[in-house]
Amino acid sequence: MLSLDKVFNAQMVLKNIIRETNVVRAYGIAPECELYLKPENLQITGSFKVRGSAYKIAMLSEAEKAKGVITCSAGNHAQGVALAATKNGIRSLICLPDTAPISKVEATKGYGADVCLVEGCYDDAYKKALELKESEGYTFVHPFDDENVIAGQGTIALEILNDLDNIDAIVVPIGGGGLISGIAYTVKQIRPSVKVYGVQASGAPSMYNSVKDGEIECLTGVSTIADGIAVKQPGENTFRYVSEFVDEIALVSDDEVSSAILALIEKQKMIAEGAGAVAVAAVMAGKFDLKGKRVVAVVSGGNIDVTSLSRVIDRGLLNSGRSSSLLIELIDKPGQLKDISRIIADCGGNVTGVHYEKGNTESVNGCFLRIEMETRDFDHVNMILQALSSEGFKLV
Amino acid sequence: MLSLDKVFNAQMVLKNIIRETNVVRAYGIAPECELYLKPENLQITGSFKVRGSAYKIAMLSEAEKAKGVITCSAGNHAQGVALAATKNGIRSLICLPDTAPISKVEATKGYGADVCLVEGCYDDAYKKALELKESEGYTFVHPFDDENVIAGQGTIALEILNDLDNIDAIVVPIGGGGLISGIAYTVKQIRPSVKVYGVQASGAPSMYNSVKDGEIECLTGVSTIADGIAVKQPGENTFRYVSEFVDEIALVSDDEVSSAILALIEKQKMIAEGAGAVAVAAVMAGKFDLKGKRVVAVVSGGNIDVTSLSRVIDRGLLNSGRSSSLLIELIDKPGQLKDISRIIADCGGNVTGVHYEKGNTESVNGCFLRIEMETRDFDHVNMILQALSSEGFKLV
Repeated sequence: MLSLDKVFNAQMVLKNIIRETNVVRAYGIAPECELYLKPENLQITGSFKVRGSAYKIAMLSEAEKAKGVITCSAGNHAQGVALAATKNGIRSLICLPDTAPISKVEATKGYGADVCLVEGCYDDAYKKALELKESEGYTFVHPFDDENVIAGQGTIALEILNDLDNIDAIVVPIGGGGLISGIAYTVKQIRPSVKVYGVQASGAPSMYNSVKDGEIECLTGVSTIADGIAVKQPGENTFRYVSEFVDEIALVSDDEVSSAILALIEKQKMIAEGAGAVAVAAVMAGKFDLKGKRVVAVVSGGNIDVTSLSRVIDRGLLNSGRSSSLLIELIDKPGQLKDISRIIADCGGNVTGVHYEKGNTESVNGCFLRIEMETRDFDHVNMILQALSSEGFKLV
Repeated sequence: MLSLDKVFNAQMVLKNIIRETNVVRAYGIAPECELYLKPENLQITGSFKVRGSAYKIAMLSEAEKAKGVITCSAGNHAQGVALAATKNGIRSLICLPDTAPISKVEATKGYGADVCLVEGCYDDAYKKALELKESEGYTFVHPFDDENVIAGQGTIALEILNDLDNIDAIVVPIGGGGLISGIAYTVKQIRPSVKVYGVQASGAPSMYNSVKDGEIECLTGVSTIADGIAVKQPGENTFRYVSEFVDEIALVSDDEVSSAILALIEKQKMIAEGAGAVAVAAVMAGKFDLKGKRVVAVVSGGNIDVTSLSRVIDRGLLNSGRSSSLLIELIDKPGQLKDISRIIADCGGNVTGVHYEKGNTESVNGCFLRIEMETRDFDHVNMILQALSSEGFKLV
């Protein structure tokens, strides 16, 4: 059973394993409230997961430790288990599907785990892990539905309450529910007046649906930029804790998450992964009643691969008018690119791409010109559009 | 005159204005040494500059304070002065060229400064600032060549020495030289055995050249991704301090800086601007003899605009084989895109762009196909190239 004693015990045990991440004031992200961040993206391994797995592993009996631990995950949990096992001086084996990105495999090995690549998908790796657990006697470390794992995540609440007085609310991402169970349980024991709000991705609303309907439900599919919280079904323990201790759950869209990632980069100089940014996204999008309140948003992780990050930034630039793409129908006469370039340059736009495209133009000799450019904002884009129109160019 | 007393005094004065940024261990960035970061990108205003300007402003007489301060800058110094003045309850006026990006203008206003937009370029804004200083009696806050500004930056060294024992070396970016003057002076008074290394961009080697030749020199032009340290000429004070207290200066290329920015994102989940990443770049590129040493690299700022960041990431992805662009010469027969798509998909590549381009192909009916794709690494790119070649496609 979870108890406050257990959470305090976890804090002692984790002292020399994890980083105590300090709550930081975030200016300019959500002007309506007094927003602070708990930056677990700066935690060792790049996510909070190491807290739960390290406490779980530390609490194993000597006999269990001697046999080692096993889990299957391509993400933050694998790295948390790997590091926690290594720091406790025991063996860890991580089962991964052989389609897992090389970078994740290397990162997991880098924390000292043995990696077992299993042909197939995640479910095959999971099956293999259970087989090995049976045949070799490893302890399976569940990513969320385990009292000790939950107690480990609860230490985040102790740190927040220690860092900051008079908090009105804490906003927390929900995947399987381990993180928010630990935080909500701990906060409500110590300072029950503090609201605890949960956030899921609208493409993976498993806990949201389950709590709404009062029973554990399983999604048939998940699709979200926040892959770290794309969980089909809540745990039994976590469902119970969330139902009892969490005040409200909201959903955020991929675009809201992208905007939050971009805001964290621009205002806080920090990288959050999709799952790590959902709490900030919910605050920015006004999903809870936080006006004038002192609020802590948990940024749970920062392990976003750079290719995805690049896409999020590109999307954010388009969404805020800082890059744009025009399609202009040209008639076939010389000098048109010259005129268009001049107009855009005079307006202060910066051309970054030009492509001629064939297509169903009015004149049989015509073509389309696709222009990509860097702009300041939507007003700037409109200024350029108007300048082009007023010189007779036909925008499609 | 600079003195250790002054640096300690600055530390007291700055206590409630700045954030004390904690030194963090950086794993996986430079495995040859034990690397720590001093993350001044997480400083309020996004750079260390606020330390120097806030101390400078706090030391003004009441009469000077009553008249307010003036400076001209489009960057970190402007935001530092604006915030420092506001926190001291005095007026600040920042002269900017009217070509300055709107985001910078808004950020400076956001910290409470009045902004004077001057028609023309940086030099025009500088002239205007000096005019206004004369006519209105403002105090001009120099970005680096001022003893109190330097003392303020020196507080960084006090924090580093307090955070970490047995340091062998501190690596510091150099623009005008204010930051490294403060750090080197302070370190050499307190712990002279600690080496202090400076880093400039190879496209703006003003201090490097000046120290090498033993006299202050002025560059005719500067060109670097690290715009925050693109300074044409060292200050008189900073030249003196650097010559006396800095052990060695190295230069880094734009590609080395880009790799450092990417490494900080991937390994540390933090954003550095170009100037902020040069010290890490020098450590990564092995510019100093740091093998087995305990080293602190100062990450001086994080104010990179997202458009530049996007370019740096794209460049980094290309440089590490995680994205690539192929040009294939096609002959004009149906089904070729289908075959190429299949081959790339079978190899696990992810196509992100396709363009047909006309050109001087062997057959008059031929054309070039440009394919952009996401890949894992250079081995993966080569695997795809070979698969395409072996099915008869002609790579250009």
